[in-house]
Amino acid sequence: MRMNEGVEWAAHVCVLLHWLDEEEPGRPVAVARIAEAYELPPAYLVKQVQVLTRAGITASVPGKHGGVRLARPAARITLMDVVAAIEGPDEAFACTEIRQRGMNADRPARDFARPCGIAHAMRGAELVWRRQLAATSILDLAASTPRDVAVAARRHFART
Amino acid sequence: MRMNEGVEWAAHVCVLLHWLDEEEPGRPVAVARIAEAYELPPAYLVKQVQVLTRAGITASVPGKHGGVRLARPAARITLMDVVAAIEGPDEAFACTEIRQRGMNADRPARDFARPCGIAHAMRGAELVWRRQLAATSILDLAASTPRDVAVAARRHFART
Repeated sequence: MRMNEGVEWAAHVCVLLHWLDEEEPGRPVAVARIAEAYELPPAYLVKQVQVLTRAGITASVPGKHGGVRLARPAARITLMDVVAAIEGPDEAFACTEIRQRGMNADRPARDFARPCGIAHAMRGAELVWRRQLAATSILDLAASTPRDVAVAARRHFART
Repeated sequence: MRMNEGVEWAAHVCVLLHWLDEEEPGRPVAVARIAEAYELPPAYLVKQVQVLTRAGITASVPGKHGGVRLARPAARITLMDVVAAIEGPDEAFACTEIRQRGMNADRPARDFARPCGIAHAMRGAELVWRRQLAATSILDLAASTPRDVAVAARRHFART
């Protein structure tokens, strides 16, 4: 069970956009420049950012000096938002109700009225995972980075 | 990010083996019969059970009346054990340290001495997920199933 590598990229993109936004609110950045800054494949990063935009996390600004920016303050974007955008809404554990098959196919429906205990336990564990990710915002992540790294990123992306 | 369907199968196999073990301790069951009971592809189920055996969750009993049984009491097998056996030990989030590339390639090592905040947050969330799965045993899962279903399973697997 592996998360898409796009999750790491998307989280870093959001933190970077917050750093740049702090300096110059609302300024869009070309995705190609972000790809170059982190040595990521540009076309694939564009796709990940499109997904973030569809999810309302980033916003696309058209035009020659266009690009991408955060769609809302970093304090209101959580790591869960980013994971859900890139990974999709499905739960990691998919219950296919094998308990109702074969030897149990003729059992009364009431035996299976309650969710399968296995699915219930899996769902409970995923819920605490989701809650934990939802408790961490992009602002928290930006604050956990050494100040120098944020300053260097702003310098790298400074208008020439 | 999807869990292997083998996780659902393996968890049900463990619960079933516990039910049968309660009636006749240590009695092995042919995996082909378990596959038939849940309408699962036999060859693929054999592979999942081999993985459980390698992980020390089940034990293989050779011979004409051989098969598989739980290797230890159901109270000492957790859902985390089953998930780890089938999914492997890797974390779902793989940090590839993109923070150290491109524009940051020349930065001093001290800037990256602490784990990336994103990886740290991801690891924390996985930890609570793992803890929750480790808090649920196969015995708990067996206890959450309607009594009639356990009785019917024992009847289905009764020696003829």
